[in-house]
Amino acid sequence: NTTYKIAVLAGDGIGKEVMPEGLRVVTAAAKRFGITLEFTEFGWASCDYYAQTGNMMPTDWKAQLSGMDAIYFGAVGWPDIVPDHISLWGSLLKFRREFDQYINLRPAQTFEGVRSPLADRGAGPIDMMIVRENTEGEYSSVGGIMYEGTPNEIVMQQSIFSRRGSDRVLKFAFELAKTRARKHVTVATKSNGISISMPWWDARAAEMAGQYPEITWDKQHIDILCARFVLQPQRFDVVVASNLFGDILSDLGPACTGTIGLAPSANMNPERDFPSLFEPVHGSAPDIYGKNIANPIAMIWSGAMMLDFLGGNDSDGQCRLAHDAIVAAIKSTLATGPHTADMGGNASTTEIGVAIAALV
Amino acid sequence: NTTYKIAVLAGDGIGKEVMPEGLRVVTAAAKRFGITLEFTEFGWASCDYYAQTGNMMPTDWKAQLSGMDAIYFGAVGWPDIVPDHISLWGSLLKFRREFDQYINLRPAQTFEGVRSPLADRGAGPIDMMIVRENTEGEYSSVGGIMYEGTPNEIVMQQSIFSRRGSDRVLKFAFELAKTRARKHVTVATKSNGISISMPWWDARAAEMAGQYPEITWDKQHIDILCARFVLQPQRFDVVVASNLFGDILSDLGPACTGTIGLAPSANMNPERDFPSLFEPVHGSAPDIYGKNIANPIAMIWSGAMMLDFLGGNDSDGQCRLAHDAIVAAIKSTLATGPHTADMGGNASTTEIGVAIAALV
Ligand SMILES: CC(C)[C@H](C(=O)O)[C@@H](O)C(=O)O
Ligand SMILES: CC(C)[C@H](C(=O)O)[C@@H](O)C(=O)O
Repeated sequence: NTTYKIAVLAGDGIGKEVMPEGLRVVTAAAKRFGITLEFTEFGWASCDYYAQTGNMMPTDWKAQLSGMDAIYFGAVGWPDIVPDHISLWGSLLKFRREFDQYINLRPAQTFEGVRSPLADRGAGPIDMMIVRENTEGEYSSVGGIMYEGTPNEIVMQQSIFSRRGSDRVLKFAFELAKTRARKHVTVATKSNGISISMPWWDARAAEMAGQYPEITWDKQHIDILCARFVLQPQRFDVVVASNLFGDILSDLGPACTGTIGLAPSANMNPERDFPSLFEPVHGSAPDIYGKNIANPIAMIWSGAMMLDFLGGNDSDGQCRLAHDAIVAAIKSTLATGPHTADMGGNASTTEIGVAIAALV
Repeated sequence: NTTYKIAVLAGDGIGKEVMPEGLRVVTAAAKRFGITLEFTEFGWASCDYYAQTGNMMPTDWKAQLSGMDAIYFGAVGWPDIVPDHISLWGSLLKFRREFDQYINLRPAQTFEGVRSPLADRGAGPIDMMIVRENTEGEYSSVGGIMYEGTPNEIVMQQSIFSRRGSDRVLKFAFELAKTRARKHVTVATKSNGISISMPWWDARAAEMAGQYPEITWDKQHIDILCARFVLQPQRFDVVVASNLFGDILSDLGPACTGTIGLAPSANMNPERDFPSLFEPVHGSAPDIYGKNIANPIAMIWSGAMMLDFLGGNDSDGQCRLAHDAIVAAIKSTLATGPHTADMGGNASTTEIGVAIAALV
């Protein structure tokens, strides 16, 4: 019987409030399906730690985490203490890059009981998977400022795409589409405006698509693609995008389904050379921290994705069953309550965690 | 009495169908308000011209256009003949850059008779102005490919921001906000992820905002900003953004108001050192070309923006009145018909132009 080792990093703000509920539900599911989990909590990767030490993480963070199978991650950021680009590049973005978590997988679905802000949802349910490249592209740290502090100041920042980095995320998207009913991939691009990297990206996509004759695909410029998320979201199945475009689409998709506070994500290294990281899409929400009113569902759903990933490709395994049980419990709670304030209810963070754990 | 010289470039596809209606309405308004316009039509800046000559424009395009006060522009692109990045960089993007049209102004508003895809529009009308930087930023032509054609291929593309380029668009946005009721500016950013150029952009915005104590402002990361366009679009007043983010927001904003086919834009050089360019946001729509069913309202509305710009800062002048008369005629046509197919009617492109011209 395998023991899965999980690093727990709650981070800042509501990360610290939703994490206990995520752990509660994941533990309940593990117990029910006979999965052995070993949790280790770390106080760093937080702005509190930064305030004490001047760094987001200890120097040996990699050694401390590298024996782990997964990182269960809350939310990082407390702009009053640390500017976001320092707190994020010092933690989350370091994990993604140094642990080569090159797939960021983010579902966007409509649920019974969750009202979409789009009218006419008679158009059919929304059920898409956004596959975001997670290690390169527009999020580089290459660039600088010239003539700094003068009227002639110029700032440059490179976007950097590798064939290896692009092909592997495109491949993941086409493989994922094979497992889905509609078997369609939409490739986000902006090759009419961003005239070097994006036409090249289009060519990589076309070459990859050629290897999947059973999958239909199209490419859409990010501007009109965002518009179509609003106009015809039910049409999308798998959407694959660069780091920046994937970031945008994976907030916009859940906004269109009404689930922006519920969206989970998996930052994965599919080869398991490094631990993968599971986190809610939402941030640390300083404005509501401390009231125990944050919705823990994104954290809990991310925990379900973590269990599914731990179980590997075994679609009949206990980990898959644990995942499915958590998702079913989330669905039933969304449909019938209790609800937190963001969903029009008055339940606390803790009450939601307890309710979902009980259903599991 | 000034004569305004206008270059007419219809371009490709439905550009050729909507342009005559734009001209019809602009001419009618000019006549009514005693404005003298001189139109010169050019057959280039089109993929047809490219098919004949191998270039999008003649070598002396700048000389041919430089005496003009404005360019009235249809739509460019016919991907079956010319890849988009070649047709656009060989025409529209050249104008924007070489004529230093550094402001791209794009309104997004709800109208009576136009259904927003967002439910609950009881939340109040949407009325925002998107101010897009139009000459630099993410749309650079600086970069290249290394190890081309090999598995080690790497592509780089620079984003380039200058203090001059950023400050002038930020200033325009804050000045525009002064003229509006809500006096609020939202600055699009992504400084938590794009860690060199965007924190710098935030600092430019903060410095500019400091000079406008009467204007309230905030900055929002592009991912959550896109989500809020869907969730609370009525909250936005002036939104200022880099080239790429402005491109995305100015498709998404009209999508949220239901006016994606109606959205106009002004590509302006406010100093009038070069001609400014007025064009619909929509493209050449190869799929519906040739049927005379395209909606000409974006073209017509862009014509109204052109007249307003030509009249300068004289808010009581004839040009402003002509602008207002066209917008009023558009509103009344949207409310009571006739409508083209995209709005649920069966009127032709021509019929809409004739109807709006008659009202003017
Ligand atoms: C056609 C394309 C290059 C252009 C842009 O991205 O600027 C268009 O989308 C626009 O918004 O005017
Ligand atoms: C916090 C930020 C750096 C991050 C990103 O842009 O990747 C977040 O928005 C996300 O989507 O995970």
